[in-house]
Amino acid sequence: MRTLKLTLAYDGTNYVGWQRQENGPSIQQVLEEAFVPLAGAGTAGARPPAVVGAGRTDAGVHALGQVASVNLDSDLPADVIERALNVRLPLDVRVVDVADAAPGFNARSDAAGKTYRYRVATTPVLSPFDRLYMFHGPGRHDVSAMCRAAARLVGRHDFASFQTTGSWPLDTVRTIRRLEVREAAGELAIEVEGDGFLRHMVRAVAGTLLEIGLGQRSPDTITDVLAARDRQAAGRTLPALGLTLVTVRY
Amino acid sequence: MRTLKLTLAYDGTNYVGWQRQENGPSIQQVLEEAFVPLAGAGTAGARPPAVVGAGRTDAGVHALGQVASVNLDSDLPADVIERALNVRLPLDVRVVDVADAAPGFNARSDAAGKTYRYRVATTPVLSPFDRLYMFHGPGRHDVSAMCRAAARLVGRHDFASFQTTGSWPLDTVRTIRRLEVREAAGELAIEVEGDGFLRHMVRAVAGTLLEIGLGQRSPDTITDVLAARDRQAAGRTLPALGLTLVTVRY
Repeated sequence: MRTLKLTLAYDGTNYVGWQRQENGPSIQQVLEEAFVPLAGAGTAGARPPAVVGAGRTDAGVHALGQVASVNLDSDLPADVIERALNVRLPLDVRVVDVADAAPGFNARSDAAGKTYRYRVATTPVLSPFDRLYMFHGPGRHDVSAMCRAAARLVGRHDFASFQTTGSWPLDTVRTIRRLEVREAAGELAIEVEGDGFLRHMVRAVAGTLLEIGLGQRSPDTITDVLAARDRQAAGRTLPALGLTLVTVRY
Repeated sequence: MRTLKLTLAYDGTNYVGWQRQENGPSIQQVLEEAFVPLAGAGTAGARPPAVVGAGRTDAGVHALGQVASVNLDSDLPADVIERALNVRLPLDVRVVDVADAAPGFNARSDAAGKTYRYRVATTPVLSPFDRLYMFHGPGRHDVSAMCRAAARLVGRHDFASFQTTGSWPLDTVRTIRRLEVREAAGELAIEVEGDGFLRHMVRAVAGTLLEIGLGQRSPDTITDVLAARDRQAAGRTLPALGLTLVTVRY
């Protein structure tokens, strides 16, 4: 048995998210189905191997560098496996790399950090080519105020105020290692690197920073928002389509 | 009655093309329907005004700067008309500008030239985000051979060899003012500016240049291809999805 590390890019528009669900196709499902001919070809009742993803992206969230692990009984070279998977996968899900990993490698539990990017189109008219990949937030944004607020979120904090109501992890303390706001050519990009994220945390951070950019709240309020440990204290959760999982660090 | 000049961007993936057809939604149709409330609001049986497009883009072809003209009985400011249209249009069709034009302006017959871009992804794996906008042509291309061939196509020529079989315009002579091949970051872009184009001509020119780039034919053969006046002499017609109407010149 071999352990493989897969790097994946996908357009999340037509999926219920990473994880298998009853209500529609998931990335995990199409990926596991693409493995069927590789894992026990010709065996009646062959079941696809379980694929573990580093980040359980929500419905509509995209990925440039999602990482997944899988145990496979196959002697095929990694590049042949990559091509075989891409032939079977739909064009909105691509395997960009397959590599052998140390036995027992688990893409989720071994992940040391992840980088997400939230993209906002600030132009008056949203380009038809960006409509599935960027949130439309037209207007002028005070990027320096957003950067000041972002700096206050960097570090180890209790992010309970940025967690979707109804989620109950025991521990809501996370570490943000980097949080950058960049503006260029009608696009505002919010990029965040952390050891892990609570449910909808990146989208709530982006929503809060956007409200600061529009002058609807002051960057100084961030300290109070964190202290409140109350979802009502932070800004709104922006739509899934603007979010992309960029890289996973090990 | 006023004449308006509209500038449009659209993702052609979900349309049968610019022109109204029985077998599905067209760009012209959704645009004319968006005009209904502006042209005779409240009038029973009000019919949408006819919108004339500069280029009759085929099914799956995109636009960044398509131009259309329409005659409208309305006193609304141009920017209000623009916003009203965008509220009614689907997100894959956007009006990026509305301006008053000289009375009688016709976007099609007054057009002096158009620029199209054909995009080819040359990376081994096609990004899921490019799958609807770029043709996948992996491999190394001899860009300088493509540029030499392109130079031979510039000017006034009979382009009958680049016209889809079954089309019968009386005159197959056209002028290409500029034809550039650029390569950057896994993308080959073929940009062509001309006074007008025969049916599928840009896609056949792109297909021929791509064969030259892959060494399947020599750039020197272009002179013979033009002289043949035979569709079989040129390269294949590439798929519609790689093509974008970039600008229209007046």
